[in-house]
Amino acid sequence: MLTNLHLSLVNLRHNRAFEFFVIAVIIISALEIGAKTYDLSPAAVSITKYLDIFITVFFLVEISIRFIAEQNKKHFFKSGWNVFDTLVVVISLIPIEQSEMVLLARLIRIFRVLRMISIVPELRTLINSLFIALPRLGYVVLLMFIIFYIYAAIGSALFAEINPVLWGNIAISMLTLFRVMTFEDWTDVQYETMEVYPMSWLFYMTFIFFTAFAFLNMVIGIVVGVMDEEHSRERAEKLKAQNLVEPTMLDLQNQIAALSQQIHDLKETQSPKH
Amino acid sequence: MLTNLHLSLVNLRHNRAFEFFVIAVIIISALEIGAKTYDLSPAAVSITKYLDIFITVFFLVEISIRFIAEQNKKHFFKSGWNVFDTLVVVISLIPIEQSEMVLLARLIRIFRVLRMISIVPELRTLINSLFIALPRLGYVVLLMFIIFYIYAAIGSALFAEINPVLWGNIAISMLTLFRVMTFEDWTDVQYETMEVYPMSWLFYMTFIFFTAFAFLNMVIGIVVGVMDEEHSRERAEKLKAQNLVEPTMLDLQNQIAALSQQIHDLKETQSPKH
Amino acid sequence: MLTNLHLSLVNLRHNRAFEFFVIAVIIISALEIGAKTYDLSPAAVSITKYLDIFITVFFLVEISIRFIAEQNKKHFFKSGWNVFDTLVVVISLIPIEQSEMVLLARLIRIFRVLRMISIVPELRTLINSLFIALPRLGYVVLLMFIIFYIYAAIGSALFAEINPVLWGNIAISMLTLFRVMTFEDWTDVQYETMEVYPMSWLFYMTFIFFTAFAFLNMVIGIVVGVMDEEHSRERAEKLKAQNLVEPTMLDLQNQIAALSQQIHDLKETQSPKH
Amino acid sequence: MLTNLHLSLVNLRHNRAFEFFVIAVIIISALEIGAKTYDLSPAAVSITKYLDIFITVFFLVEISIRFIAEQNKKHFFKSGWNVFDTLVVVISLIPIEQSEMVLLARLIRIFRVLRMISIVPELRTLINSLFIALPRLGYVVLLMFIIFYIYAAIGSALFAEINPVLWGNIAISMLTLFRVMTFEDWTDVQYETMEVYPMSWLFYMTFIFFTAFAFLNMVIGIVVGVMDEEHSRERAEKLKAQNLVEPTMLDLQNQIAALSQQIHDLKETQSPKH
Repeated sequence: MLTNLHLSLVNLRHNRAFEFFVIAVIIISALEIGAKTYDLSPAAVSITKYLDIFITVFFLVEISIRFIAEQNKKHFFKSGWNVFDTLVVVISLIPIEQSEMVLLARLIRIFRVLRMISIVPELRTLINSLFIALPRLGYVVLLMFIIFYIYAAIGSALFAEINPVLWGNIAISMLTLFRVMTFEDWTDVQYETMEVYPMSWLFYMTFIFFTAFAFLNMVIGIVVGVMDEEHSRERAEKLKAQNLVEPTMLDLQNQIAALSQQIHDLKETQSPKH
Repeated sequence: MLTNLHLSLVNLRHNRAFEFFVIAVIIISALEIGAKTYDLSPAAVSITKYLDIFITVFFLVEISIRFIAEQNKKHFFKSGWNVFDTLVVVISLIPIEQSEMVLLARLIRIFRVLRMISIVPELRTLINSLFIALPRLGYVVLLMFIIFYIYAAIGSALFAEINPVLWGNIAISMLTLFRVMTFEDWTDVQYETMEVYPMSWLFYMTFIFFTAFAFLNMVIGIVVGVMDEEHSRERAEKLKAQNLVEPTMLDLQNQIAALSQQIHDLKETQSPKH
Repeated sequence: MLTNLHLSLVNLRHNRAFEFFVIAVIIISALEIGAKTYDLSPAAVSITKYLDIFITVFFLVEISIRFIAEQNKKHFFKSGWNVFDTLVVVISLIPIEQSEMVLLARLIRIFRVLRMISIVPELRTLINSLFIALPRLGYVVLLMFIIFYIYAAIGSALFAEINPVLWGNIAISMLTLFRVMTFEDWTDVQYETMEVYPMSWLFYMTFIFFTAFAFLNMVIGIVVGVMDEEHSRERAEKLKAQNLVEPTMLDLQNQIAALSQQIHDLKETQSPKH
Repeated sequence: MLTNLHLSLVNLRHNRAFEFFVIAVIIISALEIGAKTYDLSPAAVSITKYLDIFITVFFLVEISIRFIAEQNKKHFFKSGWNVFDTLVVVISLIPIEQSEMVLLARLIRIFRVLRMISIVPELRTLINSLFIALPRLGYVVLLMFIIFYIYAAIGSALFAEINPVLWGNIAISMLTLFRVMTFEDWTDVQYETMEVYPMSWLFYMTFIFFTAFAFLNMVIGIVVGVMDEEHSRERAEKLKAQNLVEPTMLDLQNQIAALSQQIHDLKETQSPKH
């Protein structure tokens, strides 16, 4: 009987109608979160309460079905997406009743919307491609941080007394530099310091050059690289699926050389006859 | 006699002089729309009235000619551009006389300028390449919407009481976030919330990272991908036109292998002789 | 004797020292233009007067040398750069003495700095690559203009009464839209119209989408395309210089097929022997 | 005994634990620089003093070890990174005691953070790839400078009397133009001059077109080019490591032609028999 239940759960899990129902509940959950940001009538507020309970229970049931339907239980938690789904469901089960924590409870529920990404395969692929790029981006981000850190140290050493709100310490300076990097009212910041240090435009110019410019170029390069990789990986997989491997120019050259040897051998075998 | 008329219409439709005349009328129609935004003398106003009637009638005649000249009437409405042209012409025929609707009538006439796109093949190609990219972009836009929705929900939960004009509800919050994404006075928004939540810079930083950065990268990737596709499609078509298909490395390898087999066979046929 | 002069001029024209001297004079001319924007002492002003005369005469002599050194006089004016150089020199010869025209005379002299581009080959190449891209960009620019025109027409129809300074007529509206496209204080423009038309954010959103987004993508595509072309053209030229043409995959396939036929023929010639 | 010391230093230099210790000291040095931008208690200030001495001595010892461990002393200073490291260490040894120079001493110590780049290989690679692009970028930067110079000259000739703060002389004008290029409140600059010269929007439009647009495109092209080069260089090196060179299409064609000749010869040697 247990196996019967198991089988029907597996069937349910791969049922398209069930999948669409899950997506529908996620969308309803998202709409409810949005609706709560408006001033609601008391009737609507009580509806959202029952809706909240329904969504929490439904998500709990759905994740349980997926867990039971999984053959190998260990395999289930190897997928980052499953771990993420379970966390979202489990955390929203924690009863938060104290009035102070209401805001936190609301924030946690917002993350339910992220389940949309874990359930639509195309969105998962997009996020995965971002994660593939991360290790390569890691060093660029480190380089950016070093540039920011050095400029922030220089900035707060020189400009702290001119405007402590913008250059008071290294943390505030880094925030100000991020603002300069986005070109947001950066000339106001510059004109202020230029009154004391007329050459300080060099500080901003070189900073903008090093970050916005050099950094952007590197990022483009990395992105293009990742895309190329993805592209060639896909093509390789397509060939693999046909149990074939695309030969390189070198493989062809070696084959032609072998051919040449074959013809040479042929000539040799004929020559003795004469 | 009807066939004669049909034939002469077909000829007219493909006549270059006629095509240039249609473009000229579209340009005149565009200039008229522009002229109307200035204060015109009563004389000029009455001219635009007659011009309006002339353009409406001319476009009606032109679309009729193209419809009659079309062999297969069903085929005519299969082209999105023909449907668009017909809609623009038909809607501008609806008599709008009520004073309140004058603005609407003016707006509809503006869309006549879009006929410029449907009549110049190069512009059609540009728009088509945008449409080819749309399905791929669809999921990126969905991902963007989810990111916006989650951040807007968090934003209006935390900041609604700080500034209801910017964070009052989820819709207003999304507009504010779009403003942050374009870097337009985003530090003003940030400094305001940082007075209450000093760590709220993390909210903006991560949002900017996820949208402006990650999103842009994905878009670049998609665009490069689409361009590659277009490029290879064009090359394939050029070869097809010559009734040829460019072989792959694999095809070459298989051919060389076949050659090797041939030489091997040749050797076999000679060996028995000895 | 005339041929002797001609030969010595040709030698001079291709002399590296002479070339560096020309570049030096252009730089001096640029520095003089820059110096004039400062308040100068009377002595310095009189120096710039004599310098002006010297530079004008020197450029006249230099362009004459290049013209005389040219074998085929017709060929000289076929190069756009030569025409440009001649124009700059000839226009600066026109005596402008009236006090009102002094500003114009100053502006014309500024264009002498552009001769820097015509004399450094690498800069010429950069500008040329821009010109190669222009015909392809032409249609994108036309499409952009149509989008701007339509939105400007809608904008001045709807918003002219809200703020005539920004939306008074179609020309002013286009300038305002260009400002929106550069994200420069565009929310101020938006918030103003949203007070009357609360849905007008759609106007800005779609406009930003169509221009900044779609347009940028197309441009990237075109740029990548042009770069690819340049790249393959260069490689082709390098091969051509060695009197060789890189074969295509198809050429290789045909050659291998011919080989197969050869082997087949070989087999045929042996078979009759049995 | 000296050789023993030398060997143990070489071992130390390539010891991973030692490397991590060096990185740790650099990070501590960076944190100290950051901490100094906050108001510190007298106790903390005295700690930073001792820390400063420790870091200076440690860096001196570390660079000495690396210098002694180097087989060929001349080779040591051929690496730009070694020169940079030595400079940072030597300059921080100069005793700066005068109260006026304290700021300068602080600024010099900040550059110690840059040693992070010289010690992490991945960061070195990133910076190197920027340097590879520099010669190609050189001419684009020169072109940009010429465009800036010409527009600044025109700007200060026309607008100096409208707003001397923005257009007073050519240097200030170039700074203003850089601001326009970053789209930072550029419409304020434009509206001001349009009151006197209503057509001056053309000045800004063309400037933005020439710089932000044309320039960006060129940069993208160069970056893509450099990335391609890097990519093909890496692939070539990988093949070289296997003592192989990837053949070109032309090589394959020549080999196939040689094969054809071989078969032809084979036929010739058989024919005389008949």
